[in-house]
Amino acid sequence: MNFISILMGSKSDYEIMKHCADTFEKFNVKYELVVSSAHRSPERTKNYIKEAEEKGAVAFIAAAGMAAHLAGAVAATTTKPVIGVPMKGGAMDGMDAMLSTVQMPAGMPVGTVALGRSGAVNAAYLAMQILAITDKELSTKLKEDRIVQSKKVESDSKDVEVIL
Amino acid sequence: MNFISILMGSKSDYEIMKHCADTFEKFNVKYELVVSSAHRSPERTKNYIKEAEEKGAVAFIAAAGMAAHLAGAVAATTTKPVIGVPMKGGAMDGMDAMLSTVQMPAGMPVGTVALGRSGAVNAAYLAMQILAITDKELSTKLKEDRIVQSKKVESDSKDVEVIL
Amino acid sequence: MNFISILMGSKSDYEIMKHCADTFEKFNVKYELVVSSAHRSPERTKNYIKEAEEKGAVAFIAAAGMAAHLAGAVAATTTKPVIGVPMKGGAMDGMDAMLSTVQMPAGMPVGTVALGRSGAVNAAYLAMQILAITDKELSTKLKEDRIVQSKKVESDSKDVEVIL
Amino acid sequence: MNFISILMGSKSDYEIMKHCADTFEKFNVKYELVVSSAHRSPERTKNYIKEAEEKGAVAFIAAAGMAAHLAGAVAATTTKPVIGVPMKGGAMDGMDAMLSTVQMPAGMPVGTVALGRSGAVNAAYLAMQILAITDKELSTKLKEDRIVQSKKVESDSKDVEVIL
Amino acid sequence: MNFISILMGSKSDYEIMKHCADTFEKFNVKYELVVSSAHRSPERTKNYIKEAEEKGAVAFIAAAGMAAHLAGAVAATTTKPVIGVPMKGGAMDGMDAMLSTVQMPAGMPVGTVALGRSGAVNAAYLAMQILAITDKELSTKLKEDRIVQSKKVESDSKDVEVIL
Amino acid sequence: MNFISILMGSKSDYEIMKHCADTFEKFNVKYELVVSSAHRSPERTKNYIKEAEEKGAVAFIAAAGMAAHLAGAVAATTTKPVIGVPMKGGAMDGMDAMLSTVQMPAGMPVGTVALGRSGAVNAAYLAMQILAITDKELSTKLKEDRIVQSKKVESDSKDVEVIL
Amino acid sequence: MNFISILMGSKSDYEIMKHCADTFEKFNVKYELVVSSAHRSPERTKNYIKEAEEKGAVAFIAAAGMAAHLAGAVAATTTKPVIGVPMKGGAMDGMDAMLSTVQMPAGMPVGTVALGRSGAVNAAYLAMQILAITDKELSTKLKEDRIVQSKKVESDSKDVEVIL
Amino acid sequence: MNFISILMGSKSDYEIMKHCADTFEKFNVKYELVVSSAHRSPERTKNYIKEAEEKGAVAFIAAAGMAAHLAGAVAATTTKPVIGVPMKGGAMDGMDAMLSTVQMPAGMPVGTVALGRSGAVNAAYLAMQILAITDKELSTKLKEDRIVQSKKVESDSKDVEVIL
Repeated sequence: MNFISILMGSKSDYEIMKHCADTFEKFNVKYELVVSSAHRSPERTKNYIKEAEEKGAVAFIAAAGMAAHLAGAVAATTTKPVIGVPMKGGAMDGMDAMLSTVQMPAGMPVGTVALGRSGAVNAAYLAMQILAITDKELSTKLKEDRIVQSKKVESDSKDVEVIL
Repeated sequence: MNFISILMGSKSDYEIMKHCADTFEKFNVKYELVVSSAHRSPERTKNYIKEAEEKGAVAFIAAAGMAAHLAGAVAATTTKPVIGVPMKGGAMDGMDAMLSTVQMPAGMPVGTVALGRSGAVNAAYLAMQILAITDKELSTKLKEDRIVQSKKVESDSKDVEVIL
Repeated sequence: MNFISILMGSKSDYEIMKHCADTFEKFNVKYELVVSSAHRSPERTKNYIKEAEEKGAVAFIAAAGMAAHLAGAVAATTTKPVIGVPMKGGAMDGMDAMLSTVQMPAGMPVGTVALGRSGAVNAAYLAMQILAITDKELSTKLKEDRIVQSKKVESDSKDVEVIL
Repeated sequence: MNFISILMGSKSDYEIMKHCADTFEKFNVKYELVVSSAHRSPERTKNYIKEAEEKGAVAFIAAAGMAAHLAGAVAATTTKPVIGVPMKGGAMDGMDAMLSTVQMPAGMPVGTVALGRSGAVNAAYLAMQILAITDKELSTKLKEDRIVQSKKVESDSKDVEVIL
Repeated sequence: MNFISILMGSKSDYEIMKHCADTFEKFNVKYELVVSSAHRSPERTKNYIKEAEEKGAVAFIAAAGMAAHLAGAVAATTTKPVIGVPMKGGAMDGMDAMLSTVQMPAGMPVGTVALGRSGAVNAAYLAMQILAITDKELSTKLKEDRIVQSKKVESDSKDVEVIL
Repeated sequence: MNFISILMGSKSDYEIMKHCADTFEKFNVKYELVVSSAHRSPERTKNYIKEAEEKGAVAFIAAAGMAAHLAGAVAATTTKPVIGVPMKGGAMDGMDAMLSTVQMPAGMPVGTVALGRSGAVNAAYLAMQILAITDKELSTKLKEDRIVQSKKVESDSKDVEVIL
Repeated sequence: MNFISILMGSKSDYEIMKHCADTFEKFNVKYELVVSSAHRSPERTKNYIKEAEEKGAVAFIAAAGMAAHLAGAVAATTTKPVIGVPMKGGAMDGMDAMLSTVQMPAGMPVGTVALGRSGAVNAAYLAMQILAITDKELSTKLKEDRIVQSKKVESDSKDVEVIL
Repeated sequence: MNFISILMGSKSDYEIMKHCADTFEKFNVKYELVVSSAHRSPERTKNYIKEAEEKGAVAFIAAAGMAAHLAGAVAATTTKPVIGVPMKGGAMDGMDAMLSTVQMPAGMPVGTVALGRSGAVNAAYLAMQILAITDKELSTKLKEDRIVQSKKVESDSKDVEVIL
């Protein structure tokens, strides 16, 4: 069973990260979602990652705020792709979480997405793009979604556009 | 033929991005590397991506500096995973490239790695982790590399450590 | 027919960019306004620009937030002057959009104005100043507007000033 | 006689701004270049702008560093388009000059380009794009330049590219 | 008649700058307060400064936001001490106004105080400290005020303190 | 009597710093809490520190905002460990207080914790970790607290988790 | 005897601050210059200020880097005007010193000038502008200096200018 | 045997951190120093901490750059005091390491010191201040060191001072 595993450093991150889960639901992609902290529950985090890998986790998504070490801790534990979602709310409008997530040392990558809700959604998209490499059906869905996104732009434009 | 495609916005990015190519060489992973600009050669960029996809590109790495649109332009053209490498040298010590690469809108993810050389290496690692999902041999190599990395820490420590 | 073309990356930018449109209305300057995204509808964006140029677009205004590539994408498609308006709401209080808009590589300029509402209004003013180079009537109006602005300062001062 | 006027706040800005002048030379576009400070020679600045306008200045380019008021001072004196070039060397890697130039109040636009040398070149390009609205020959040159830029990308790529 | 002159770039700055005026009222120090813009009413600004100097202005306080050129424009017009108060509300939480005010070139100083309300109050204090050099009575009041400030700390502490 | 001394630069810091006091209460650790300013009551600050040291203060916690000099002033007065808590509310989302607290010159350390409420709590934890070096009971409590923190993560997870 | 007192937090600041002293020399204005640290020699700092005041110090200039508390410490000790000069070399290209100097609480102003050498020179100018309020001769010199500055701009321009 | 344990995330940090070790040497304080990475050798890091605690480590110093997770990883493993030293060299002039180190979640404190060399020295001082709570001799040395620091300021001043 292939699935994506979502970890959040704090339950309070769920408000944002449910948009990640919702995106998987929309595309009918299997995922797990747990709260586990790099600092407060490092053993749990490590154990969960190992179990998830055995159950079939293909990639990990890690969301955390402030000195956001969760994605890095996941990256240090697995060689599966890790996607980091920096949460706002700490210092400098989320720059603490952004830099703590993206500035990983050579050999330990975290693919970081945008701050907050856009990032939560994009973490799901990036994970699905990874799954879609070997999943034709999902690949087709993602291509169709691009058309939907594009059409949404057109219909959005209709609401406000001024054409001479 | 599965391979990773590396795009650079400017030839001057090669000095950094050769560390990305070198990492692929070291792991014997096939890659292409081209210079193509989101702004100066948008058609070339689009055409290259289409051709690369047809030839078997599994993921794209895009490196650019300043208002670094290249990774976003690649992401808008393909549904394959896109990894962005922000180059230093513009404003605020590379923050222009970092934010231009990572802050993508929902639905168009770019998995962004660290600024500069560490990012160049990590882009290769992240791409290989994606390939390794279905490539057992590469997966094994990446796990062995972790052991090598860990041992390097130990031997590095030997050079300077003070133990009571 | 000479006119200015306004593009917004998202319908949500309209709340700010209507101040741009209102400024054109106030000066009786023709404009078009559409939603089109650099990432979600790149073809639409390109096609729109080509059509607008043929219909007589003299300059383009592009407003976008986060990794704001729209102005750059417009600049890459046309050799008409492009004015970029960075939207707030992403990272670092709009610095992501500011730097993504202004830090264009040599040969592909975007004339960037202030963040948010002031920028929306100023994009219109800058576009009108360009039109006014060959439009005496508009030039006169812009000069008169300066007097109005200056008088507004005086009357504003009256409301609060303390003079010995 | 149509021309573009370049003002620099300090003679030390010339090292960067000669790339602006060189760009005009390359396209055979007439320009003036003077040193004049918003703070140290405000009268000279004002008088120069008035004289330049009378002689045929179509647009102004203003380059300054630190609390870069020059572009704003020019914008306050003329209703011609003003292009601002922020110089590095002050605080926060040029962010002082960037924000001092771009964050103009509504009604007083400065079209700001990138920090430093890229900005110096782009100020010339943006000014030429404005001139090209009514100058077919220059318009053609700018379109040809795009092809040159695009071909340069291709030949640059040849030097380093790896194609499978 | 010795007095301090307060200039604000916009009427909207009054909400903050009335704390400056209130501070002068509290110490019974004469002041003028006007709205005048570096960009929208440069002539008015210049004329006002000249008139204020003739009437007895000893120092100037200039408050502005965004690309806050007002203090610099005042500094360029007079050799009296100029105190700059950066207003929040623009980019980067007021850093645009801060850097535009403080980063003046050599020979044209602006003594800059804190962002927003604390700065508005401190502009008054700094101006009074300047007046107090030759005004014994005011000097005594300022010294007494320090004692009041110190006692306020003690009584504030009483409200919350925990002493073993 | 061993205790920790908390100083706040302003009574308004109490809203945040009561979370520091509450943390000591929870662990039954003795503390004092006073308002004293580096600037408005420097003598009081110095005297208080001396008295607190004599009474048995083992470490000092200093919380301040803006140009947060309080922790540095305490550090200059005592050779006991000093923990600094930067308050938000000034410039750049608290970066003024952060940098003013942490960037102490060699020989005068301030151990700085996170901005705002997390920092207030962590100042107490860090102080207790210092006390626990020689206080077995407290050391045990801190180890138990880690288990509580870890279990809290698990129970938090239960509320939202999705497990396949 | 009226004079200006310059304090530096470290001897290493002298390289920059000699430009402050040189400016006083050039205008034949009396000054003292000492090294004294807010943290390493707080008593010396306080005693020096008291002595300087008694000897006739009219204003104080304080230069420091990193968590630059010196200007604030001086401001807390005297009610004479205090001018702060932030030194580069710490974090964020001098932003630590800038914010630590300028963000003073209400009632304790520090008039802050630019980072580094420009600031060192401007501290002297601002101090002289304060002295010139009651010193006609110096006032005349400062006005003449403005003319010199303005002429310097003209002659600088001659070296590089291009006039049609 | 009481000692302080220094961990560095990379051997390259030694150039800075030897100033930490040198400070311990100067005060004749026992320390260990090892290279161990939060990401590349997480098990080694954990094991080392456990062993060091058993051998008598009283506090830990952790130095790392970029997404500096080392201090946080140490803090998550021990309830001894942890002092974090952010290294420069990554993004935003070391702000990545600063924020990744200091912005720890409630319950997991890291006492963070200045960026780079000053921080390396101050980490040693802070650790010694902790040791000195129960070590009278060291406490006396630290108090004497303050006098030495203060006298150094005086002698430094002699080299450059100007006294009227």
